[in-house]
Amino acid sequence: MSSSNAVLIVGSVALDSVQTPSGVVERALGGAAVYSSVAASFFAPVRIVGVVGEDFPKEHLDFLSSRNIDTTGIQVIPGGKTFHWAGSYEGDMNQAQTHATELNVFQDFRPELPADYKSSIFVFLANIDPELQLKVLDQTPDAKLVAMDTMNFWITGKRDALLEVLKRVDVVFINDAEIRQLTRIVNLTRAAAKVHEMGPRYVIVKKGEHGAVMYCDDQMCFAAASYPLEEVADPTGAGDSFAGGFMGYVAKSGELTHDNLRKAVVYGSTLASFNVQDFSLNRFKRLTKAEIDNRYEEFKRIVFFEPLA
Amino acid sequence: MSSSNAVLIVGSVALDSVQTPSGVVERALGGAAVYSSVAASFFAPVRIVGVVGEDFPKEHLDFLSSRNIDTTGIQVIPGGKTFHWAGSYEGDMNQAQTHATELNVFQDFRPELPADYKSSIFVFLANIDPELQLKVLDQTPDAKLVAMDTMNFWITGKRDALLEVLKRVDVVFINDAEIRQLTRIVNLTRAAAKVHEMGPRYVIVKKGEHGAVMYCDDQMCFAAASYPLEEVADPTGAGDSFAGGFMGYVAKSGELTHDNLRKAVVYGSTLASFNVQDFSLNRFKRLTKAEIDNRYEEFKRIVFFEPLA
Repeated sequence: MSSSNAVLIVGSVALDSVQTPSGVVERALGGAAVYSSVAASFFAPVRIVGVVGEDFPKEHLDFLSSRNIDTTGIQVIPGGKTFHWAGSYEGDMNQAQTHATELNVFQDFRPELPADYKSSIFVFLANIDPELQLKVLDQTPDAKLVAMDTMNFWITGKRDALLEVLKRVDVVFINDAEIRQLTRIVNLTRAAAKVHEMGPRYVIVKKGEHGAVMYCDDQMCFAAASYPLEEVADPTGAGDSFAGGFMGYVAKSGELTHDNLRKAVVYGSTLASFNVQDFSLNRFKRLTKAEIDNRYEEFKRIVFFEPLA
Repeated sequence: MSSSNAVLIVGSVALDSVQTPSGVVERALGGAAVYSSVAASFFAPVRIVGVVGEDFPKEHLDFLSSRNIDTTGIQVIPGGKTFHWAGSYEGDMNQAQTHATELNVFQDFRPELPADYKSSIFVFLANIDPELQLKVLDQTPDAKLVAMDTMNFWITGKRDALLEVLKRVDVVFINDAEIRQLTRIVNLTRAAAKVHEMGPRYVIVKKGEHGAVMYCDDQMCFAAASYPLEEVADPTGAGDSFAGGFMGYVAKSGELTHDNLRKAVVYGSTLASFNVQDFSLNRFKRLTKAEIDNRYEEFKRIVFFEPLA
């Protein structure tokens, strides 16, 4: 395994119970770090950092290892219970209803990077407490591209720490509701310019069924469509898969050009579109590189209307 | 004026009072037929059909004529008052608040086409009572491409007549809320397939700031981004301008290929993006062909990530 282009991913590892119009799963593999790591692993080796309890099935760790994901950064807490989330989706499935959040071992999560992770060049801080995201940044002095995700809970509850993280990252993934909440600006173009002022060079706004938009410096530089799916089985992990696909492709391509970042956004959309077609990590488990390449080509056809002048 | 490629447009001609965070206008030129006719006129000659009262300023008719729009189809009712709408927008400006709707002469509108309009090949039925849309269809036996718009009011209030119109048109413009209301299906891809079953070969879903999506037969064939504007002065007429730009380009290009329809969607988006930058028809009044071409090119750059394989 080449490790120079490995992606370091820090975040939640979970057992999720999810109900949608398409079905139900109980305590299935989930968590932001898991979705994003598996998505990234289609392009580059991954180093995952997280915490689980003794109840976490060994088969899940084996699955991650089988995907070229280094799991030495997953702490297993003796006698502990794994983070558990239970929720459901209905209607347009854009918003989850949370039924239960049991933090368990995740409550005391303090990300400690294994020594050989600390030289990581590509770092993704999945959606966790921004104070923990800062601790990861302190341990990764060689990072060349750092991306972060966040959520409404931290925007309102830990705004100061979140602003500190924003100062230190290159890319932020954020959805349209969150960016409006963070900036208190309704217009997305002006909201993105405001976030750019807060630190990140690249602001990527995820809009679910409406695709994603990337702002480079203070300008909108790329709009990606969403892939037209007739059925979304389970939206859980869509944003994480997007971020993982993006980071994996960036790490694989190595060069941080706008061209590569645009392609990375489309690979992110591609991975997200596959992930939601089944529950948990089930679609990724049977996903092939050929399927990814075919859908990436379809993304090209969907938006094409005339060659550049 | 060549008339073989003229676009026939039937709909409202209005005097609008609009308030937005950017300002206010009182009894300014408006109406679906006006916005769509002026947008179409950048590409092809237009024949407009509508009704106004004696209070309708002659300068507005002169403006339309100056744009290569045949206004002989606009009836002026002696002693009558022009349709007046008053409304405001706030927040994300996606939804107007209506303060007043005075139908006036529009209440008794019965579209009667001038004899030389009846051979029209390109027909746009702007948002009016579907029973009136049917009367227009009866008068245009040579139509090769008929497009329609509608709204929630007719979807709930005149569903049967609306379904009759849908059977007889080639293209329907509809927004995401309306298509869900019409089909009672949340998933847009399946909703569009359902509308295709109702008649139209092309279903174009307008999503405001999220762009537009075209379904050709039962498949999503094109997704267009929206142009990133830092400020929307007045969203009134955006959908009408979109439809007008689309129809104008289709009439100009003549050939109803998927390639041309995709370009027409982008020209529609282009015209809509200009229209919302000022109140009433003000932006169109100073819009140049060079500006349209430049923004069309920007639409290409915004979505480009790699050439087709």
